[in-house]
Amino acid sequence: MIIECVPNFSESRNKQVIETIIDNLSSIPDIKIINRHSDDDHNRTVLTMIGDEVSIPEAAFKAARLAQEHINIFQHTGQHPRIGALDVLPFIPLGDTPMSVCVQIAREVGKRIGEELQIPVYLYEEAALRPERRKLENVRRGEFEALIHQIETNPAKAPDFGPKKVGSAGAIAVGARMPLIAFNVYLNTNDQSIAVAIAKKIRQSSGGLPNVKALGLLVNGIAQVSMNLTDYRKTGLSQVMEAIRREAALSGTSIHHTELVGLIPRDAVLDAAAFFLQNDHLTHHRIIESHL
Amino acid sequence: MIIECVPNFSESRNKQVIETIIDNLSSIPDIKIINRHSDDDHNRTVLTMIGDEVSIPEAAFKAARLAQEHINIFQHTGQHPRIGALDVLPFIPLGDTPMSVCVQIAREVGKRIGEELQIPVYLYEEAALRPERRKLENVRRGEFEALIHQIETNPAKAPDFGPKKVGSAGAIAVGARMPLIAFNVYLNTNDQSIAVAIAKKIRQSSGGLPNVKALGLLVNGIAQVSMNLTDYRKTGLSQVMEAIRREAALSGTSIHHTELVGLIPRDAVLDAAAFFLQNDHLTHHRIIESHL
Repeated sequence: MIIECVPNFSESRNKQVIETIIDNLSSIPDIKIINRHSDDDHNRTVLTMIGDEVSIPEAAFKAARLAQEHINIFQHTGQHPRIGALDVLPFIPLGDTPMSVCVQIAREVGKRIGEELQIPVYLYEEAALRPERRKLENVRRGEFEALIHQIETNPAKAPDFGPKKVGSAGAIAVGARMPLIAFNVYLNTNDQSIAVAIAKKIRQSSGGLPNVKALGLLVNGIAQVSMNLTDYRKTGLSQVMEAIRREAALSGTSIHHTELVGLIPRDAVLDAAAFFLQNDHLTHHRIIESHL
Repeated sequence: MIIECVPNFSESRNKQVIETIIDNLSSIPDIKIINRHSDDDHNRTVLTMIGDEVSIPEAAFKAARLAQEHINIFQHTGQHPRIGALDVLPFIPLGDTPMSVCVQIAREVGKRIGEELQIPVYLYEEAALRPERRKLENVRRGEFEALIHQIETNPAKAPDFGPKKVGSAGAIAVGARMPLIAFNVYLNTNDQSIAVAIAKKIRQSSGGLPNVKALGLLVNGIAQVSMNLTDYRKTGLSQVMEAIRREAALSGTSIHHTELVGLIPRDAVLDAAAFFLQNDHLTHHRIIESHL
């Protein structure tokens, strides 16, 4: 089973700390760090690790321990909201991995972090034990500074695992979620209002496609529909493309080209190919390289 | 580098021999047998192996040696044309592997088979040293029975490597070629003449798309355009789909669904997805699972 884990560390400016963390994590067997992104304004580093159901929980726990050893949240400044040294720890199912596996891993790793490292843990999104904690923004509201004072006394701030007090590692939001696809569609027009209208038409928040967030922008003088597909297994690239094609045609324009930001899951690509080829049996098992 | 090798053995009825060959080949490190197909009428077994530039030449040589040990071409009967116990040994580049690597491997393995096993070897397709040997049907014309008498005296039958005489292993055609994609398109009609007309329009032999072979058939009462794409990097699934969509519309029908026979290369799927998504940057490097 292939699982992605994306630990967000509240550190970027101290390169030595980041290198130490990366060196330690990448030495774990069957773990590969496929992306790192540091932002000094946010003072935050996001690592993308992939591994299996054995290596990923191990790497995730180690990420929490390394953050505890090397990052002091009391000294952290930066624009990005955070509650801890290791701020967020999501597990993401890839390939055929069921979401339930990631939910279980999130809860087990969360429990271990709480007990062994004595760090308060809040479970969010699919792994949430309390419905109000599904949304990460709720868990992080008030940030670390609010937690310091409220964690002991406010039942709404009681952690799912670990002690009702924060040390230098702060707290950690541990969750399970689908991979995001960041997908931008450029139109054959410089009229931003068309992109805005299409975005409004297709996004979930205004009654469009489920699991689609969309904005209409003007990028380099070209109208762009900028999207997040938050569950590509439910609303895939093919549905989004067809919807935008139709809406663009109704506005007298068309798609010029598209852009994928970052990496995307294999099955999202297969969905696009299968739709175009009108072939319901196109799975990764049919691809030669999948067998190597 | 990922390389496919598809040894064709002139044996199918003796299951013990086939099992011995498969057991021996699959025990080679970094070799995976991803498909086997035996036909008792042809009395022929086709194995699909994948590996790298070190393991594949080793497995290919071993395939020739195993065939020599276990199959006597003098006793072979079957419908399929053949010149040897291991009849055909093609090397096929997958992923980013250049064809030139497979050409080199074919020539080196061919030389080794000729010298160490004393089996006559004919290089074909991209690996051919003589232009008239590019086509496998030319190499195999007259089959093993013609070779017995002509190999010593007819310069046109002189092997590229190995002795000018055949033993119980016969001869081997060793080549390098692109992977074939067997791709069938079912139309929303039971009128076979439409499939026949479309096949004629799109196939290379009647002036259509290069590297496309096509026939119009009636399969389970549905008109089907049955194709081989012989070089998907030059003419891909997207071009073929678009051509058939256009021709079908001109005949007042449309594509119902499509069918891929056997396995296909990853990059052929990416081409279809990239075309549909109007995204020129969709390579396997963008796919999360490619990094595991």
